[in-house]
Amino acid sequence: MTLRVGVIGTGAIGKTHIHRLTRTVSGARVVAVNDVTEAQAQAAVDSLQVDAKVYASAQELINTADVDAVVVASWGPTHEEFVIASIAAGKPVFCEKPLAVTAEGCRKIVDAEIAHGKKLVQVGFMRRYDQGYRALKETILAGTIGAPLMLHCAHRNPTAPGFSGDMAITDSLVHELDVLRWLLDEDYLSAQVIQPKRTRLADEGLQDPHIILLETTQGIRIDVESFVNCQYGYDIQCQVVGETGTANLPEPPSVTLRREAKFSRGILTDWKDRFVDAFNTEFQEWVNSTLEGKMLGPSAWDGYVVSVSADACVAAKHSGQITPISIPERPAFYS
Amino acid sequence: MTLRVGVIGTGAIGKTHIHRLTRTVSGARVVAVNDVTEAQAQAAVDSLQVDAKVYASAQELINTADVDAVVVASWGPTHEEFVIASIAAGKPVFCEKPLAVTAEGCRKIVDAEIAHGKKLVQVGFMRRYDQGYRALKETILAGTIGAPLMLHCAHRNPTAPGFSGDMAITDSLVHELDVLRWLLDEDYLSAQVIQPKRTRLADEGLQDPHIILLETTQGIRIDVESFVNCQYGYDIQCQVVGETGTANLPEPPSVTLRREAKFSRGILTDWKDRFVDAFNTEFQEWVNSTLEGKMLGPSAWDGYVVSVSADACVAAKHSGQITPISIPERPAFYS
Amino acid sequence: MTLRVGVIGTGAIGKTHIHRLTRTVSGARVVAVNDVTEAQAQAAVDSLQVDAKVYASAQELINTADVDAVVVASWGPTHEEFVIASIAAGKPVFCEKPLAVTAEGCRKIVDAEIAHGKKLVQVGFMRRYDQGYRALKETILAGTIGAPLMLHCAHRNPTAPGFSGDMAITDSLVHELDVLRWLLDEDYLSAQVIQPKRTRLADEGLQDPHIILLETTQGIRIDVESFVNCQYGYDIQCQVVGETGTANLPEPPSVTLRREAKFSRGILTDWKDRFVDAFNTEFQEWVNSTLEGKMLGPSAWDGYVVSVSADACVAAKHSGQITPISIPERPAFYS
Amino acid sequence: MTLRVGVIGTGAIGKTHIHRLTRTVSGARVVAVNDVTEAQAQAAVDSLQVDAKVYASAQELINTADVDAVVVASWGPTHEEFVIASIAAGKPVFCEKPLAVTAEGCRKIVDAEIAHGKKLVQVGFMRRYDQGYRALKETILAGTIGAPLMLHCAHRNPTAPGFSGDMAITDSLVHELDVLRWLLDEDYLSAQVIQPKRTRLADEGLQDPHIILLETTQGIRIDVESFVNCQYGYDIQCQVVGETGTANLPEPPSVTLRREAKFSRGILTDWKDRFVDAFNTEFQEWVNSTLEGKMLGPSAWDGYVVSVSADACVAAKHSGQITPISIPERPAFYS
Repeated sequence: MTLRVGVIGTGAIGKTHIHRLTRTVSGARVVAVNDVTEAQAQAAVDSLQVDAKVYASAQELINTADVDAVVVASWGPTHEEFVIASIAAGKPVFCEKPLAVTAEGCRKIVDAEIAHGKKLVQVGFMRRYDQGYRALKETILAGTIGAPLMLHCAHRNPTAPGFSGDMAITDSLVHELDVLRWLLDEDYLSAQVIQPKRTRLADEGLQDPHIILLETTQGIRIDVESFVNCQYGYDIQCQVVGETGTANLPEPPSVTLRREAKFSRGILTDWKDRFVDAFNTEFQEWVNSTLEGKMLGPSAWDGYVVSVSADACVAAKHSGQITPISIPERPAFYS
Repeated sequence: MTLRVGVIGTGAIGKTHIHRLTRTVSGARVVAVNDVTEAQAQAAVDSLQVDAKVYASAQELINTADVDAVVVASWGPTHEEFVIASIAAGKPVFCEKPLAVTAEGCRKIVDAEIAHGKKLVQVGFMRRYDQGYRALKETILAGTIGAPLMLHCAHRNPTAPGFSGDMAITDSLVHELDVLRWLLDEDYLSAQVIQPKRTRLADEGLQDPHIILLETTQGIRIDVESFVNCQYGYDIQCQVVGETGTANLPEPPSVTLRREAKFSRGILTDWKDRFVDAFNTEFQEWVNSTLEGKMLGPSAWDGYVVSVSADACVAAKHSGQITPISIPERPAFYS
Repeated sequence: MTLRVGVIGTGAIGKTHIHRLTRTVSGARVVAVNDVTEAQAQAAVDSLQVDAKVYASAQELINTADVDAVVVASWGPTHEEFVIASIAAGKPVFCEKPLAVTAEGCRKIVDAEIAHGKKLVQVGFMRRYDQGYRALKETILAGTIGAPLMLHCAHRNPTAPGFSGDMAITDSLVHELDVLRWLLDEDYLSAQVIQPKRTRLADEGLQDPHIILLETTQGIRIDVESFVNCQYGYDIQCQVVGETGTANLPEPPSVTLRREAKFSRGILTDWKDRFVDAFNTEFQEWVNSTLEGKMLGPSAWDGYVVSVSADACVAAKHSGQITPISIPERPAFYS
Repeated sequence: MTLRVGVIGTGAIGKTHIHRLTRTVSGARVVAVNDVTEAQAQAAVDSLQVDAKVYASAQELINTADVDAVVVASWGPTHEEFVIASIAAGKPVFCEKPLAVTAEGCRKIVDAEIAHGKKLVQVGFMRRYDQGYRALKETILAGTIGAPLMLHCAHRNPTAPGFSGDMAITDSLVHELDVLRWLLDEDYLSAQVIQPKRTRLADEGLQDPHIILLETTQGIRIDVESFVNCQYGYDIQCQVVGETGTANLPEPPSVTLRREAKFSRGILTDWKDRFVDAFNTEFQEWVNSTLEGKMLGPSAWDGYVVSVSADACVAAKHSGQITPISIPERPAFYS
């Protein structure tokens, strides 16, 4: 059985997903492609040698009978519309983050999905599919380090071309916001954002780094260093401190060297290399579960909660205050 | 385009490969299955939910027009016959190691393939597909550590149930024999085998560990510790010492812990976990290249050279002497 | 030339210092000993086989012509009196922390020393003598990681028998307060104290862990996890994040093991093992510089600044607020 | 009580020991100094500011009543004479390696010491005083890794200016020959020396690296890579493989860095930095035990056994054969 997928958006990430669904993942086939620029959609189909039809409109792609499931990889502000259209068509839809560019937009999707009565939406929070985060969660669940009390995390990019304003939160931190609540199975109560001494190596006017402090409903305290111009590499760190020990996210494997008076191993510099296996697993599991009629990945509710939490972080940054995070009760539909 | 594969042999490894070709690898479909015990073949097809026909004879499976390519995963002594039959049928064939149980058998396959005039055979030396070995080879080729002079290796299993006689060489060491000559792009000149103090934790009568010393044509010296009852884990080590530095095979990633007065990370205990990604890559690349009409993996010649080298190691063990390894000139067909 | 030392206080730490000055350090001799319990002083002299006279009063020990320099290792509340008496006698004095139990007491010592006109006082902040912290400071000064922006630190004890109230700050954190401002050559501007979810393994009523957030005059941000019942070991961590890289305090050396499916190395459990070399270096350098008429170690001013900073941390803990730290201008005497 | 030491030889190592005995070690004083060049002895005394008398002859220094114990740090070929003279004078003598430049010379010292009837000689094998080797020996004795079966060792220098002929064995390997038999408490049965592909970065005509294979009396197998022009650092490795696990010599502590796409820590480049603490401990323990009338360090017998073993390694190198090592029974005097 093969899942026939329609992909909306053929920018960098869209093309990667088309290639992944065609050449890496088992059980799927990309049969339909759309892009706001039709010529670009055609060029993607040609260059990737995919046997897919180019649709002039996303709506048409969503509605065609040939498409079993939709992947939304278009420009962020269009996500909400295409996800809601997919729900309306009763089709499973995988939406790259953000689910919508506002919390209200996310909430509309949640409401639409509940109204439809069946879970159809998965959000592209790929870190949950990283073997390292999964191993870390297993370690916590096994009780190896006792009950978690604190998390010390870092999200470092070598540089952040094009970053401005609050993008360190709205574009990068959202991954931590999703994966840490998944790791702990708890929501956030409050946020505080500290602005340390600014690196001179960031674009003019951009505050970098930040330290984001989060409190969970059970009182677990999280600090996330976000440093998007750290120069040295793409480096994701996560240490869980429990009552009896600590556990750290694994480092990606690397040849170890002894040369020039140093022992060393490589650090990745491109985020795509860091999570390539996670992306593959994410799509393989999405294809598998979709073929079985289930939706097991990060849900529309998760996308909504992350959006609300990120909004609070942005507010906390601007106020300098400890800012409450109010998450409504989780609908029974999502438990 | 989908490669239609026939699999001979439905023991543990055969079933894993059927599952891999069906659920993990992209671009292939298992359409035919055979086993010396027909009921076992049927049971495999049923339990794995594969849409494949069970053939009563391997020969028939090889010859059916529905099968584009053959995977041989049956009992070792049958490999030679099935590989030669596949060559006769002009079909690409992936053969689990050993290619044949004697060097003479391997040579016959080489001769048959040359006579046929097109490369069809790939041998299941999966370590060449391990990301770690590949990164190590890139490191050498990049000149990062200068010209290699020595290799220090270890092949450790927790236990080796059922091992007897020279199986540490003929069953395990063959992987090092293949991957190290691939890593260095050199053949072996001589072998010596040292028998250290015997562990009391091996089966009665079994010598364990061994140290195998190899010399390459350019004078690079290799020592391989083979310790198949080391108790603590499945642990593959490889350090290349070059003129200006050293490079080590990466360790598999693992959560790092601090607890009970120890910093620790896990060591795998099952060889299948260690090389699962390598197996997947091996098959994906075999499928890809086979669909393109190419044969890029370990060749019949590689299988033959490893067999000759392993024979020399066994002789060296029994004589205690430094034993020459005579590899005939590589036929132009394989260069 | 030999420095003749008088030691006040023969509890655990006093006896260790007597032994150190006698058996480890070169160039010193303990000639006089005093304790509030005279019999304990005599017992220390006997058990340590030191050729020293027992004095009935600390004052008398300080004033005797046989004593060139004084070590104060008595009960904390007595430090202020003995240090001031040593200054009055014009004698170099090494005082274990705390210099005095209040900031006001420290200030009186500072004023007395300035009035005397010559630096005589050294405070027992031994971390500055740890090879690891010294190497970390050299790394910063060498520009290897660019200008420091953030520090992530942890101070973990396995258990904290007898700890109560704010001792995690007043007894433990003071070491970080001293060594971090020495590392960065900056004072603190403000403090905030976070109280994470409480471990159930601390004594009843004791908050543990804490996270202390400090801001320096240049805007560098420091977070220190203080976790005095972490169970697993005595573990001091310090990571400096600079504009171009990060540097971590070295881990103490340890045999590395592979056994029972784990790679591991030991973590110390006793603080005395962690800083034993630092204590030795501290005393050797104090003896050397004192013999040369110089006072190079942590000064009375350092003791005062740490005391003011610790008071602010205690206030910040109780208020939950970001609390300013007001350090007066450093007197020229101490620059 | 102070040990009054006379030092023979004021080259680099002699001066270091004078400084060490004067400024670092507790309980000793250098009172007498001699060098074949009297002016150099005087210059050493002056520059090190030691209150010691310069003696025109070593013999005179040995015999003067002011000297309690002798340190021999002169040119290797003179060691035998000065050690025997010290024994004749009934004085404890610490002799830098080699004890004598021939096994016969070592044997004469052994015989002289036995004839004298009291142990007086200690040989400068400082690795036994290294905290790392001591921790490794404790690990073995604790049974943590089961009975040792194999040792994998490396002795790497960045460069070896002035090395020629067999100096990699006679000058460097002797340290492994001593410390490994101390570690295992076993002597050697045979040696084999392999000459790998030669590095182009060694002095012309010098074979480098070597692999030395040793067998102990109980069948433990040792391989030592000796690579004295490895370029990258001074790096001493030792892995013990036991029946249930492996244990490695600790790496020297180092700041860890993340910069320029690499995680790294420093590797030492100077042997003096590697073993400076071991030298200090060696002398402190020699002073302590000498003051107590005991001789606990590496004995004349140890010096003799190492000499015999090194001779066998040299012979093995030249013959290419497995060469027996015949150690006479240890005299009761040394057990």
